Amino acid sequence: MGEFELLVRLRDRLPPVGPRVRLGSGDDAAVTVPGGATATSVDAIVDGVHFRRGEAPPQAIGRKALATALSDLAAMGAQAGEVYVVLGAPPDLEEDELDALLDGFLALATATGFTLAGGDLTRAPALTLAVTVVGHAQQPDDLVPRSGAQPGDVLVLTGELGGAAAGRLLLDRPELGDELSEATATGLRRRQLEPTPRLGAGRSLAAAGATAMIDLSDGLSGDGLHLARASGVGLRIEAASLPLAEGVAEIAVGVKQDPLQLGASGGEDYELLAALPPDRLEEASRRVAEVAETTLTTIGEVVAGEGVELRLPGGGLLESRGYDHFEDRSSESR
Amino acid sequence: MGEFELLVRLRDRLPPVGPRVRLGSGDDAAVTVPGGATATSVDAIVDGVHFRRGEAPPQAIGRKALATALSDLAAMGAQAGEVYVVLGAPPDLEEDELDALLDGFLALATATGFTLAGGDLTRAPALTLAVTVVGHAQQPDDLVPRSGAQPGDVLVLTGELGGAAAGRLLLDRPELGDELSEATATGLRRRQLEPTPRLGAGRSLAAAGATAMIDLSDGLSGDGLHLARASGVGLRIEAASLPLAEGVAEIAVGVKQDPLQLGASGGEDYELLAALPPDRLEEASRRVAEVAETTLTTIGEVVAGEGVELRLPGGGLLESRGYDHFEDRSSESR
Repeated sequence: MGEFELLVRLRDRLPPVGPRVRLGSGDDAAVTVPGGATATSVDAIVDGVHFRRGEAPPQAIGRKALATALSDLAAMGAQAGEVYVVLGAPPDLEEDELDALLDGFLALATATGFTLAGGDLTRAPALTLAVTVVGHAQQPDDLVPRSGAQPGDVLVLTGELGGAAAGRLLLDRPELGDELSEATATGLRRRQLEPTPRLGAGRSLAAAGATAMIDLSDGLSGDGLHLARASGVGLRIEAASLPLAEGVAEIAVGVKQDPLQLGASGGEDYELLAALPPDRLEEASRRVAEVAETTLTTIGEVVAGEGVELRLPGGGLLESRGYDHFEDRSSESR
Repeated sequence: MGEFELLVRLRDRLPPVGPRVRLGSGDDAAVTVPGGATATSVDAIVDGVHFRRGEAPPQAIGRKALATALSDLAAMGAQAGEVYVVLGAPPDLEEDELDALLDGFLALATATGFTLAGGDLTRAPALTLAVTVVGHAQQPDDLVPRSGAQPGDVLVLTGELGGAAAGRLLLDRPELGDELSEATATGLRRRQLEPTPRLGAGRSLAAAGATAMIDLSDGLSGDGLHLARASGVGLRIEAASLPLAEGVAEIAVGVKQDPLQLGASGGEDYELLAALPPDRLEEASRRVAEVAETTLTTIGEVVAGEGVELRLPGGGLLESRGYDHFEDRSSESR
């Protein structure tokens, strides 16, 4: 299939263009009329690195490529805008697989109100999707960076943790799910294969006055540390308050891991971690509930200092020192 | 080298951010304050498809990845804005090669006034650069689509044709350059390896009232046809007026091709083809000359009808029927 055929195939599947797009796919560049500020992010997934072709249905791959990119805009609290995709197609990519990829990608674009405004198609040795997402805001201050958290702010988290990591383990070793209900096992696999960007919750948190926000692609330990360092503060998280997804505890036991570590450091949950002035917590909770997309849980507070502390119910203390897991520092702190 | 090291390396090399960037690389998304309209394009190059690693210096590869993307913005007449890059790094990419790639990329960004505002780095089986470019305008109508050409408009072309195609042949078969001066041969190779986006000329043509514009990545036959079809018109081009780059004739003879075909259909010259109302030609010529980036040549006119005709000095007629070359239709038209 040549590039022109691919372009026609893509264009035939495009949903109607969004209100900001004056000139969509097919010219040298897309022309848009942006808001007073834009948030732009690029993200790529490659077969063999971020997913395994054949393991997941192609719809799920197309969907995940866009979902992980949109998660970055969710973490800014941006309004829906435009997406652009570079598709690197290997020689053995058949029409059916391409159609299914595009279906998954476009279904999520439509569901989230984003317009596919341009793209490029090229041959490549491995299936590659490089996605550019553009969100809008009335002014730059309406978008939430990682860097504004203040000591005294409360820390809130959308949704539940550990589901994607447990789903990854379950896909690799199906026998780990023997003790789970089919619904729970399916839920965990979907958390891994079909993450959902928390766009509505992100806008709610931004509108409620979030001072800093980040999406959890690398896990609470790693991304919490990113937020803490960008803001020049420390985070104190109560382990007992962390909402773990159903089935995470059982999977963790099956691989002899601490459920808390799997939940806090597993990554790929794409939930949002945000800091809020305490007097904005009620409004944030109300706004997130109104969107009815996911839950909001208070998990700790912002403190002066640095790093991320995870306080255990028994009085122990774990600390994120790198970006991949929490370590015990109880012996030092006593 | 891990992703974090790569990110630090990239960030250390970033030039100062442009005036529209409020939050650059390092957060979930870049925050910009756009103009009244934006032009956005994505473009990717892959080792083994668009270039051959090892043949060209890595600086030239980094430069070309950005140059070909910016050429699309040149064809819109857009003001400088932001660029974003996804770098797919194969396992054997060494630090020196990466540094040189980034040097070439960033040198062109700086030279053209664009800010690198974000990126993503990933492992990939082949070196891949997916580039997103965003240009600005005060309002959508300041940007020039492919679709506005009117019968009676004059057709103008920046620079010279055939140099990139001749350079490609010369790189493959160095002996073809035996009859050329070293300066001419070097010039042809550079046209292939280091194309220059005609951003200044594009803005000049837009300001002078160009009705349609396109950059010549596929050649005059293919891209002329794109413009003609988008505008619903025909193009009539005088072959005698086409400016061929120095050395193209000699290389064409060496491979037993018609120099005109090599020039008109070789592709990768990244010059601009534009349509202008006749009364705007003088202003366009003056503005392009003021930028002093390249020349402007009148090569024909826009006519009612369809397709692209190339009129030969002897009275013959060639026609672009597909996107790859001109065909003789003299026998039909007599």
